Amino acid sequence: MVAVKHPPNNEHIDEEMMKMEVNLDDISGEWLGYVMDKLFEAGANDVFYTPIFMKKNRPGVLLQLLTASNTLDKMKNILLKETTTLGIRYYPITVHRMERRFIEIETKWGPVTVKQGIDQGHVFQSSPEYEDCRKIAETHNIPLKEVYAAVWRKIDK
Amino acid sequence: MVAVKHPPNNEHIDEEMMKMEVNLDDISGEWLGYVMDKLFEAGANDVFYTPIFMKKNRPGVLLQLLTASNTLDKMKNILLKETTTLGIRYYPITVHRMERRFIEIETKWGPVTVKQGIDQGHVFQSSPEYEDCRKIAETHNIPLKEVYAAVWRKIDK
Amino acid sequence: MVAVKHPPNNEHIDEEMMKMEVNLDDISGEWLGYVMDKLFEAGANDVFYTPIFMKKNRPGVLLQLLTASNTLDKMKNILLKETTTLGIRYYPITVHRMERRFIEIETKWGPVTVKQGIDQGHVFQSSPEYEDCRKIAETHNIPLKEVYAAVWRKIDK
Amino acid sequence: MVAVKHPPNNEHIDEEMMKMEVNLDDISGEWLGYVMDKLFEAGANDVFYTPIFMKKNRPGVLLQLLTASNTLDKMKNILLKETTTLGIRYYPITVHRMERRFIEIETKWGPVTVKQGIDQGHVFQSSPEYEDCRKIAETHNIPLKEVYAAVWRKIDK
Amino acid sequence: MVAVKHPPNNEHIDEEMMKMEVNLDDISGEWLGYVMDKLFEAGANDVFYTPIFMKKNRPGVLLQLLTASNTLDKMKNILLKETTTLGIRYYPITVHRMERRFIEIETKWGPVTVKQGIDQGHVFQSSPEYEDCRKIAETHNIPLKEVYAAVWRKIDK
Amino acid sequence: MVAVKHPPNNEHIDEEMMKMEVNLDDISGEWLGYVMDKLFEAGANDVFYTPIFMKKNRPGVLLQLLTASNTLDKMKNILLKETTTLGIRYYPITVHRMERRFIEIETKWGPVTVKQGIDQGHVFQSSPEYEDCRKIAETHNIPLKEVYAAVWRKIDK
Repeated sequence: MVAVKHPPNNEHIDEEMMKMEVNLDDISGEWLGYVMDKLFEAGANDVFYTPIFMKKNRPGVLLQLLTASNTLDKMKNILLKETTTLGIRYYPITVHRMERRFIEIETKWGPVTVKQGIDQGHVFQSSPEYEDCRKIAETHNIPLKEVYAAVWRKIDK
Repeated sequence: MVAVKHPPNNEHIDEEMMKMEVNLDDISGEWLGYVMDKLFEAGANDVFYTPIFMKKNRPGVLLQLLTASNTLDKMKNILLKETTTLGIRYYPITVHRMERRFIEIETKWGPVTVKQGIDQGHVFQSSPEYEDCRKIAETHNIPLKEVYAAVWRKIDK
Repeated sequence: MVAVKHPPNNEHIDEEMMKMEVNLDDISGEWLGYVMDKLFEAGANDVFYTPIFMKKNRPGVLLQLLTASNTLDKMKNILLKETTTLGIRYYPITVHRMERRFIEIETKWGPVTVKQGIDQGHVFQSSPEYEDCRKIAETHNIPLKEVYAAVWRKIDK
Repeated sequence: MVAVKHPPNNEHIDEEMMKMEVNLDDISGEWLGYVMDKLFEAGANDVFYTPIFMKKNRPGVLLQLLTASNTLDKMKNILLKETTTLGIRYYPITVHRMERRFIEIETKWGPVTVKQGIDQGHVFQSSPEYEDCRKIAETHNIPLKEVYAAVWRKIDK
Repeated sequence: MVAVKHPPNNEHIDEEMMKMEVNLDDISGEWLGYVMDKLFEAGANDVFYTPIFMKKNRPGVLLQLLTASNTLDKMKNILLKETTTLGIRYYPITVHRMERRFIEIETKWGPVTVKQGIDQGHVFQSSPEYEDCRKIAETHNIPLKEVYAAVWRKIDK
Repeated sequence: MVAVKHPPNNEHIDEEMMKMEVNLDDISGEWLGYVMDKLFEAGANDVFYTPIFMKKNRPGVLLQLLTASNTLDKMKNILLKETTTLGIRYYPITVHRMERRFIEIETKWGPVTVKQGIDQGHVFQSSPEYEDCRKIAETHNIPLKEVYAAVWRKIDK
């Protein structure tokens, strides 16, 4: 029932990365949805928005992204081209990643990949892959939460 | 020390007003700061923004305003002209207002108006007027919180 | 393994309730934490805060609460006494509640109540009771998510 | 240069619709992204999320949606199946929609549809269609904002 | 009337600490309320949540915490066990703390501790202790704000 | 039509600055609006607020500001005097600024300054100055968006 798809990498890594930040008060949400896609496509590890209160009663957005140090310029370039910013901030940040492995859980609708987080040999976290569950839910016309529930019941037994 | 500037209106009123709402994902924060000013100038009782998560990863803004029913069209007109919306929502809402009276508190830097909220003869709320306190703080170059503290010490004695 | 603790009420009810709203820009978060407790103790069905952008660059808070129509005055009174508001808004709102029943799931650490939502004879929702799970997690010094996982595995089999 | 694709409907309509609301503190963001898609597919006019502060330090989400009155039950059903809620609130809301017409603007990369909002014969709003602009930006590998700028330059001349 | 309970520490300290961050889109608010408690119990100086907009329309949460450098591993461990994260970010941050002293203010309902912040011999900040005020408010059934007001009137005279 | 008002500085600069942060749960929005003004007046490059969820159900505010390293003490001093904080955090952050130049665009209502962002000789960003546009909109009683539209049409031709 549980088949290891990829062997775990043997050690978690505390990696140096870059956090980048941009404040935006002269761009629409429509464009920001697009910018997020572009940054992920270019290899950003994470991109997210926070609502912020800026001067002159402006509801603005703080764009934050996490990227490898050697892709800093690539990200800068996208931010310059696709947003309205004239200033980009960044600082180094350490990222602790758990070892990950991927197992496959068999459900009555087919297999679902489960991502597991491991630390010192112990499985701390088991997450059914969203895209697998979504496809099953849509194909079989069942609630997404029912798919997750079916997977959870089979994990850790 | 306490002089009533305006006699209280004798009864609180449960008034019917209109709440208006607009979702915005294609306008910048810069313009929204401006729109808020225009709506207040036109007589809106309150205008405020909430960050919302809209489709396609768009960080949007929910504009809400409170206005008298007979100014609905005036507000609609400003929203049409100054925002990017193609749809405006509204619904009636009851507003319970406390009786208000304004007293004057003497401080060593001059008088400060205090707005009091009264219900059935009891003072429930005493708020130093922000603009009075701000002016004193700036004129005398003292922290704003020190001005408020001075007023609070004299209220209710 | 599954014992019905309370029989389900046989019909969901579309009930008329009151939504109340207050905008606050002159009160601290500290007091607002307290106000939430007082409103729940007085019987509010729900109380929650939304961050809002108000005039003059003020990060404010929108307090919303849901309550039975006949407790409107009680809530008003708490809001007057415990907040700084001089105006309270409200409007009627219909609440559709699912039928609920409570079942008990046996885990190796003891029983956990599960709240189920039912519509037309179908169980749509099964939620382990947070407080039961929390107590087990703290007593046995295990992660909360492990307790939930154990309960989920036993539901719906 | 400007070709009317659809004739304008001659009058704006103040339509009665339903606003629905659900508070959620026991569901993940991952599922909520999915729920938004399902509600739009089922015909909701708008769906959006607001962050809310709920009891016991829980960062929750307020789901709001706008829908025609006769699709209320359809939306209820999706909310029951796909979220964890046991209670759904709703209230009638009036929606003022501007007349819309769609014109086509020719750019050097091809045509872009522009949605115009009209009130009493006056064009209040011209919005390049996001999907048209996105496709051009991606096909020609140019910044999205450059596409919008090109369209804006040709509108209203 | 004012009795120093603890002598002030004679110097403020610019201390090196660690800021830790986790992005979460696959955990419920219910669990996050619990996680905050666990982190504080384990000695975190501060823990707080920010709503963030993540990919695929997910309303997520940014958990941030401040902790001493030598408790980094302890916090990591709680985050691994109690959340769903597979990656934890951190970076050093300098914390400037004011000197603090605690004085006692006598009110008609009993004593209230007031925390004072001092910089170069000047009292910059006087905050009535919330828990003291809360207990008085609840014991005597009076508004919390009335208790604070009573304390404020006696401070700085 | 396009007159360079200031020659561009020839190189963008990656400058070291300071990011400062304060968590606030015992201050009102009213005071925070004031604090933002004071920090900008004292030379902060940017100041913004984020809503945060703090312990004990408190909706708090995270104040962040960006400032030159040599004005750190000046900002600290304002934060001590004008807020309620007893602890201020800070860390170095690199800021990448684009070259800027200011051009003037002639409209039928008079000139509008446009700020342009340049990188390696290429104009990446053109932003009409808000204050110029606002004044025209108010003087001529026309929608702000119409002023921006007029400026955009003339840029880049």
